[in-house]
Amino acid sequence: MFGGVIMPEKSIKLLATGGTIAAAGEDGLAPALGASDLLSYLPGLEQLCHVDAQDILALDSSNIQPEEWRVIAHAAYNALQDHDGVVITHGTDTLAYTAAMLSFMLRGLQKPVILTGSQLPIAHLAGDGRGNLADAFTTALTGQPGVYVVFNHKIMLGTRATKLRAISFDAFESVNRPLAGVLDARGAHWVNPQPITGETALQSDLNDAVCLIKLIPGTRPALLDGLGDLGYRGVVIEAFGVGGLHHLRRNLTDSLGVLRDRGIAVVVTTQCLYDSTDLSLYAVGKQLGDRGVIPAHDMTTEAAVTKLMWVLGQTEDIETVAARMQQDYCGEIGHDNT
Amino acid sequence: MFGGVIMPEKSIKLLATGGTIAAAGEDGLAPALGASDLLSYLPGLEQLCHVDAQDILALDSSNIQPEEWRVIAHAAYNALQDHDGVVITHGTDTLAYTAAMLSFMLRGLQKPVILTGSQLPIAHLAGDGRGNLADAFTTALTGQPGVYVVFNHKIMLGTRATKLRAISFDAFESVNRPLAGVLDARGAHWVNPQPITGETALQSDLNDAVCLIKLIPGTRPALLDGLGDLGYRGVVIEAFGVGGLHHLRRNLTDSLGVLRDRGIAVVVTTQCLYDSTDLSLYAVGKQLGDRGVIPAHDMTTEAAVTKLMWVLGQTEDIETVAARMQQDYCGEIGHDNT
Repeated sequence: MFGGVIMPEKSIKLLATGGTIAAAGEDGLAPALGASDLLSYLPGLEQLCHVDAQDILALDSSNIQPEEWRVIAHAAYNALQDHDGVVITHGTDTLAYTAAMLSFMLRGLQKPVILTGSQLPIAHLAGDGRGNLADAFTTALTGQPGVYVVFNHKIMLGTRATKLRAISFDAFESVNRPLAGVLDARGAHWVNPQPITGETALQSDLNDAVCLIKLIPGTRPALLDGLGDLGYRGVVIEAFGVGGLHHLRRNLTDSLGVLRDRGIAVVVTTQCLYDSTDLSLYAVGKQLGDRGVIPAHDMTTEAAVTKLMWVLGQTEDIETVAARMQQDYCGEIGHDNT
Repeated sequence: MFGGVIMPEKSIKLLATGGTIAAAGEDGLAPALGASDLLSYLPGLEQLCHVDAQDILALDSSNIQPEEWRVIAHAAYNALQDHDGVVITHGTDTLAYTAAMLSFMLRGLQKPVILTGSQLPIAHLAGDGRGNLADAFTTALTGQPGVYVVFNHKIMLGTRATKLRAISFDAFESVNRPLAGVLDARGAHWVNPQPITGETALQSDLNDAVCLIKLIPGTRPALLDGLGDLGYRGVVIEAFGVGGLHHLRRNLTDSLGVLRDRGIAVVVTTQCLYDSTDLSLYAVGKQLGDRGVIPAHDMTTEAAVTKLMWVLGQTEDIETVAARMQQDYCGEIGHDNT
């Protein structure tokens, strides 16, 4: 083979959805470049692998919503039928939500699905787009199965990534779980990849009748009381600390209990970025547990919200929802907490 | 004076409000110890300063709400009339909100007001209560004016502290501003204290008709549309990234514009922990700015929410509210952002 043409063995599909990495324009950044345009910034990639490019969306990720999650999940699942891995470019704003939802929808993966994006357009000389996209391909070419976010040389589980910084190139952190891996001059190194169980399957049903309420001191019960009439089937509460909320004068415990009694799944997480809810620790939390409120354990808010939509897409039986929300599907709940 | 009794020169008032630091009990932790009980864990303190102890509340801080902020602010202001500083013990769950509100209410301070608490009860052998309380007194005795949170040997501005970790002893971070100071074996060291302007005054009026909405992909306009009918005068939105939100299918931009047209102050902050909103950067953000939405710049959510309640307590004139929300009162907005 010496002197001959080396044919790349692996084939990767690039799915472009828009986002800052693909952005240009003067009246505020808006998506402009497609998947093929993005690939033109990675000369030499074709010697490492065969790449197919597909534009599936062209959206600022603030406009990526549950409907788009299904589009992306289907496109990724289909691409995996005849490719060794998938790279998805995506705006950073809601990338953590999409990554979490794909982690639930794409069951039993045997190949990698890598999401990336950037804080500046890929054409920007001092930007992070080229580097992140190159890292995403490097990671996909390892073949490690699972859904991951690759950003700033970090590899994070799809259910653990959170956008922590709005401007910094180091925008994402892995919350309540060590990094899945890192990228350096010797390539991608895996430390703590996604646990994979079950048969490969696409399970893309969801119920978007879920809302998030982050508490503040003085949050009025009326805000919660109205949620049932708005048609919600699930509510995620970002409570204080390990799961505290007020019940003096403004009795939120009662309001959550009433929602639960109406058959709405109520999940309590914490507004602290790190660590876990623990409804057994304080008197306030015990009352919540007694009312049938579901603890989110150490899930991120992004994981808790997308998982609740996904579980409610399978069943509305409240006991089954509670059980599944507390079951670890893909690393979203730590073993100390299940 | 050699061999004689050294009389402490300074006098500090300890105000106890409850919280885990004062907790005991078997059916979930609940407040039990008073201010005098807490002082018994600091033998030798009386040789450093004269201390007066007062119990003003005995609450789990998840139950500390706007009414309590006024009680605490009045007690602190009164204590400063005949003491050199104030130490306030407080539960950690809402400590950052209380610290931010006190920073706004206590104008032109010439003395320190130090908030602290702990992740374990002060009686716990391996806990952080004794250390944090001792650090709070050490900090107060420096005389540096301002409202500060002291926790895990860190000194943070009252408007910049956020509870980041639900369990870790290192529970608080200073967000978007370096630490105000640190504590080590040589005492308290100031690096970046609170900027103090104006005459000393207590300005404790507030309007608690403020709510917080943290967006998720798919947040329904109906959730926002109903806020006016619930009597809210101000709404803080935790948007995506530098201030993004969706407008396709579910048009949140319009809903926020309608709230604004009804005379409700709408403030947009980011759900990213770090960095600032910038409504000028993306097309989506520009539309918000055009509709009269107020950017929170680099304020924490805790600061934005309490400041909006405080500003609305002074005026409901929407243009004045917008101007004051974007004015830096006590270090809550970085100079790059005003």
